[in-house]
Formats: sequence, C-alpha cells, structure tokens
Amino acid sequence: MMPAMTRPASPPCKAGFLNFMSELPSVTEAERRIRARLPRFGIEKVSIDEAAGRVLRQVVHAERDQPPFDRVMMDGIAIALGDGSRREFVVAGRQMAGMSGQALDDVSECIEVTTGAMLPAGCDCVVPVEQIRRDGSRVRLADDWQPTPRQFIHPRGSDCRGGDELLSPGVRLRAPELAVLAANGLDMVEVTRVPSVAIVATGDELAEVGQRSLGEGQIRRSNDRALAAALRGRGFDDVHLTRVPDDLAATTATLESLLASRQVLVLSGGVSVGQRDFVPEALRSLGVEQVLHRIAQRPGKPMWFGIGLRGQIVFALPGNPVSALVCAVRYLLPALDQAMGLAPRPPERVVLAEAAGTSPALTCFVPVRVHDDDAARSVAVPVPMPTSGDFSALPRTDGVAELAPSDSRAPAGTVAYLYRW
Amino acid sequence: MMPAMTRPASPPCKAGFLNFMSELPSVTEAERRIRARLPRFGIEKVSIDEAAGRVLRQVVHAERDQPPFDRVMMDGIAIALGDGSRREFVVAGRQMAGMSGQALDDVSECIEVTTGAMLPAGCDCVVPVEQIRRDGSRVRLADDWQPTPRQFIHPRGSDCRGGDELLSPGVRLRAPELAVLAANGLDMVEVTRVPSVAIVATGDELAEVGQRSLGEGQIRRSNDRALAAALRGRGFDDVHLTRVPDDLAATTATLESLLASRQVLVLSGGVSVGQRDFVPEALRSLGVEQVLHRIAQRPGKPMWFGIGLRGQIVFALPGNPVSALVCAVRYLLPALDQAMGLAPRPPERVVLAEAAGTSPALTCFVPVRVHDDDAARSVAVPVPMPTSGDFSALPRTDGVAELAPSDSRAPAGTVAYLYRW
Repeated sequence: MMPAMTRPASPPCKAGFLNFMSELPSVTEAERRIRARLPRFGIEKVSIDEAAGRVLRQVVHAERDQPPFDRVMMDGIAIALGDGSRREFVVAGRQMAGMSGQALDDVSECIEVTTGAMLPAGCDCVVPVEQIRRDGSRVRLADDWQPTPRQFIHPRGSDCRGGDELLSPGVRLRAPELAVLAANGLDMVEVTRVPSVAIVATGDELAEVGQRSLGEGQIRRSNDRALAAALRGRGFDDVHLTRVPDDLAATTATLESLLASRQVLVLSGGVSVGQRDFVPEALRSLGVEQVLHRIAQRPGKPMWFGIGLRGQIVFALPGNPVSALVCAVRYLLPALDQAMGLAPRPPERVVLAEAAGTSPALTCFVPVRVHDDDAARSVAVPVPMPTSGDFSALPRTDGVAELAPSDSRAPAGTVAYLYRW
Repeated sequence: MMPAMTRPASPPCKAGFLNFMSELPSVTEAERRIRARLPRFGIEKVSIDEAAGRVLRQVVHAERDQPPFDRVMMDGIAIALGDGSRREFVVAGRQMAGMSGQALDDVSECIEVTTGAMLPAGCDCVVPVEQIRRDGSRVRLADDWQPTPRQFIHPRGSDCRGGDELLSPGVRLRAPELAVLAANGLDMVEVTRVPSVAIVATGDELAEVGQRSLGEGQIRRSNDRALAAALRGRGFDDVHLTRVPDDLAATTATLESLLASRQVLVLSGGVSVGQRDFVPEALRSLGVEQVLHRIAQRPGKPMWFGIGLRGQIVFALPGNPVSALVCAVRYLLPALDQAMGLAPRPPERVVLAEAAGTSPALTCFVPVRVHDDDAARSVAVPVPMPTSGDFSALPRTDGVAELAPSDSRAPAGTVAYLYRW
C-alpha cells in the first residue's frame, strides 16, 4: 500500500497501485454510503431565547397580516388627501404607535401620527414632520411639498397574509428567522436536539497539553482540541474529550461506556492497519456496524465510519492532524448537518490561483487560503503541507480544496469545492 | 427630509433633496468615524478548553521543533538502507509510539516501528507493514518493493523550528489554531474578554412575544431577538434584552443603569426626528458623546452611534426590522470585531445576477440570496423588500449587498460588498 503522504516524491505510478486504489471507495461514494445510513436527531421545544443558531423542525405560519394594520411610516400628520389642493389643517387628535385607532371626522382636520402607528380611519396620506409648519393647532404644508395618495403608509398585509408559510423545517435560525418567530408570537419553538459528542484521542505517544516536560518520543494531544473547536464552531456545545491507551481492552471498555451515553463518537488515530490499531476491532466487538473503512483520498485515507446499535454515529478519523481535520470538514460536519435536519446546500466553490498537485487514483485535499477577487470569484491559494503531520501552517489557511484524481497537476483556474475549517 | 423608504416611487430628484443628502456622511465616512473612536476590549486568560471561537491576544511560539524527532510515518520496520540491496532482516526490537528511542546495532537487523514512533538511531528508512513478509523473527521485503532513503520518515523540525512564531494576536481560534495551541503546550491562553451587551427595544407599540392577544395597534417585539441572534452567532454570548417605553425619564433611567453594567448598548427604534424619539437626548444627557447621527444610506439612515464616558460602545439602530439588521451587519458587527482585536479582513464580494435599484444620493443595501456559480463567483440574486418594515422574505436571503449612489440602476454584473446576516 502506498502511504498517505510520500516523501520524497512518489515513485512512478504502477498498474498494481492503481488497481489497489480503485478498489477503495471514491470520496463521492464514501459520502453516499455515509449519508444513506445517518439517523436524524430528535426534536425538542425550546424558548425563543435559546433558539438562535438552532435548526428549525417545524413550519411557521404568519399569525396575522403583516403589517397587521395600515401602518404609518413617518412621524408627521395623517390627512384625507382629496384632490390634493388643501394646504392647511387643524390638528384634531394624536395617534401614537401602540394606540387603538383614531378616526378623522373632517377633511379640514388632521391627526398627528408617529412612526409605527395605525393609520387613523378616514386618512389616506401621511405628511412627514419635516414638511409641515405648525402654529398652535394649525398646520400648513411646506410650500414645495406635494403629498401623494397612500404616501408613507405601509399597507396592511403587504408583507404577508395571515396563514402564509414563513419558515420551513431545516433552516438554521439566524437573525431574520428570529425576527419572524418573534413577530409571529412563537415564544417556544421546535428545534433539533443538539447531540452529545465524545471525542476520543488514541495513542500512547500522547502527552497532556499542560504536562510540564515531555518524555522522549512524546507529543502533546492536539487533535481532540482541534476537532472540538470545529464542532463548537458549528453549534455542538456538548462535547466531551477523553483518551484511550493503545490497548484493546481499555479501548473497548471506554468506547462501550461512551456508546451508552453519547449520540456521536469521534475518534482520532488507531484506524490504520498497524498492529496497534485497535479501534475498528473494538468498535465491531461493541456492535458498531462498519459502513466504511478507507477512502481513495489523500490525506485521510484510513477513515472509518460506522453506526452503533442505537443509531450512534461513529467516525474514526486518522491520527495525523491534517488528515483528521480534512475528514472532519469533508465528512463529519456535513453528516452532522444532515442528522440535524438542515436542508442541504452545495459546498462553496473556489478557483485555484496556482497549480496544485493531484494523484492519479486519489482525490487530493489541498489546504488553501481564500480571498475574493475583483470579479467576486473566490480565489484559493494552495498552501501545501509537507506531510499530513505538518500543521503549523494550517492557521494561515481557510480550509481545503477538493481535487479529483488526475494524471496531471490541477492547473491554475481549476474550480474546486471548498471545505472550511 | 425624504423618507428612508418611499412608496409609491420616489418623486424626481430635486437639487434640494440632493443637497440635503450630501450633508449626511457617506457609508464610508460613517464607518471611518466609528472605527476611529472604538475602544479595544480587555484581555483575559482562559483554559484551552474554553478558547474555541475566541480572539487570540498573544503571540504563540513553537515550544520545540515539530516534529520533535524524526518521526515514523507508517507501521512497519525501520532499517539502515545502505546501498539498498539487502532484502532480509532480523527483528531486533520494537519501537512503539511514545517510547524512548531505541537504536539499531547491526545493518542486518531491523526494528519494528509504529506510526508516530521515534525513528530508531541508526535507521534511515521505514518499510510499511504491507511491503514485508514475516516469518518468526525474520522479515523479507516484498519482491516488487524498492525502499528509498528517508522514506516514510517525517524529519525533525520539518514543520517548524522551536521558537518560530506560529500564531499572532488578532486571529480567531478555529480548529487549526487549537491544534497549534495544544501541540505547543498552551493550556492557558490570552484572549479578548467577551463584552456584556445590552439590547434595548423602544416603542410603546411593542407587545411581548408570548402575549396571548394583541391590542389594536400593537406589534410584537422582534428586533431585539434578531439582533441577539446576530450577536450570538458571532460569539457574543452575554446578551441581555430589555425594553423601555416611549418616555424620556424611563428611557434615561434604564440607559443609565445599562451604561453602568455593560460595555456595549444596542438600541432599536427612537432615533428619528419624531417627537417621541427620546434616545439621542437620553444618551446625551448621560454623557454619551454623539459621534454620528444619520448616514446617507437606505435603509438605515437614522442610525446613531456614540461613545460613553467609560468607553461604552452605543449603537442606536432604526426601529424598522430591515433597517436595524442592515445597520447591525454593516456597522455594529464590524465595530465589535475591531474592538475584539480581530485582524481586519475585507468584506466578501458578490456579483449581481440582476439589476437592482439605487439612489442618486444614498448608498442602498439590497437583501440578496447568494450562490456560487460554475466559475466560483459568488452570485447575488436581489430579493427586494417592499419597505424596510417588511421582513417576512428576509429568511430567504443571506445578507445585503451594498450599492453605491448612482443616477441609474446597478446593472446585472455589478460587483458589490456583501454583509451576511
């Protein structure tokens, strides 16, 4: 088997290598297999004050016409316009925002109004306060101001009609959706229950982040913190970090306990074919059905995906930091979006600013820095990592571009999908 | 004064109107005035487990070389390659990940290695487990496998050298940054203290979201929930909602208390020139310096911005829902990013799919739905709102495109900045 990352440059392609690789599922096939097996997380009802960022799971209808009445759009006076020739009015009352409707009795009169007020009955025009001159109870229109019918009136029902469907299940609740929920009286709303996620780091070489001095051969745990950040950035707040040694019994015991208490398990490391890669074996022994192991891609080839007996989602990601993050943004996060009930959206697209290396049999993921050019194109500058263990340069990137298998380099100008960190 | 939104269509431009509008600061000038007066929020030290999404305020240097040793990249055997002619080896030991370094004594021997292990001293090549055939303690290389020098070895210091600057102040801590923090032993990290934000709804016409039946002329409070969602989506968790009636004394008392306890105040409504628009007066009486009132834009013209005696940031947004959100994404959120110490990034750019209305004297903000086309351009389809009070269609949009003042419509193909909800 060829390595996920070769250094120095790969030897020339051989038919045997290509045949082996062609047996692995492609990125597209892997995604299809994952999507076909995902459960949907449950629904809970939460207060509107906890709803921001959540995924809506109900239909929201307009409570009533919007605006619910002919609504005054400017502070000023409301008049009955008639033929538009009258320039002076007597103030006969006030109609403030929030008050019940007044009525105009005589076309020689006007009613003071404020923005947001109901239009008084009998009126059909609002004149802004800047366009009137007032003298006691008498008001005169500014000489150069010509009122027109229905001016500065926001008509009842012009935005929507009572009963209109305003929001559908599957939308993430951002500011506009919260405005609609609130305006239509939904103080409680049905959203997807956020799953509890366990992140499991494997590897005897791992030292704690806070450990003062490191033993020879040790490195600090970092993948689990990175994966937790990726999840928290997408609203998964209930993330629990743990660690297992490179030991089958200990790995199995920890995973059994996590499978009982979490809906999602994300492991890093221990999924290659080495003698200490216990993760697939431990998962299978716990009844987690293996749906996928290995994908024709670089980095991230060893990824493992399965479904537990209670529908738990289990991703076992490679241990190399870049590989783990690539698999997280390419498979884990989209899978969780689907399980959350989010309506699917196509990934972002970018155009390569420079040529980037590809593989004849593997989809390659290239870290890129992205900016918008003068033509509003999203331009991706490749920032190649020497190996999938090299991540010091990752903070200078926005995500990875997905490059299809090819016998030649992907030229500048290639359009690719982008997966953000 | 012309209204922010005119219905029916605006009367022909008049010199007086243009002159008035030209006295208002442009969007660019408004942004400049705001940016010039913003404070910077303070710094706190938090655990790495609370750092995701926060803004880094310290330099992070590499703790040591990365990788810290010549690191084995595949499970297999480590050998001393010599001239590459030797095909058989005797297993003389094991070097697992996390173990102290072994040494190879004799070139006829090999050491079993696992991914992540230190390369044993005396070795200069790793042969993957798939390319060996083992018989007891004897190992033979696969017939078609030719090892090459330094193969599958991730050299010490190839990713970074101890002391290298890896992260700079002003970055938001995403997954790659968390990996770097953890790998370099930062269990505590200096980040920007998240400010406490008060959102204040004004308007006697406002009813509570949960109120069972609405009085005539009432509408439900919605702007504050929308603004809170916009803030929470950017990591501002400490958001407090309150409400004041259209009354100067009550408004002043509430604002005084909020100015004492919060770093940021966001008000909606009460900033026009109407007789009940008490907000600017109340703020001034509390020592909040008015930096800006009104901007040559539509919607959102009445926006007010000031700075309190203790550096509190005060945005008083218009009461119309679309206006309030436009001002929030165009001014409030970028201002908070600056005060958080985030390194500036240019806004996204989009290209208009269809022509959109502009104004000769005002910058116009048009709600748009955005998708990427086959050339990786971000294409924005305008979704015009009938008035700035109409927000039922906002959930179908991604944000607003900013269109410069112009005597003619912005044609399809116009490139504009995008501000996402």
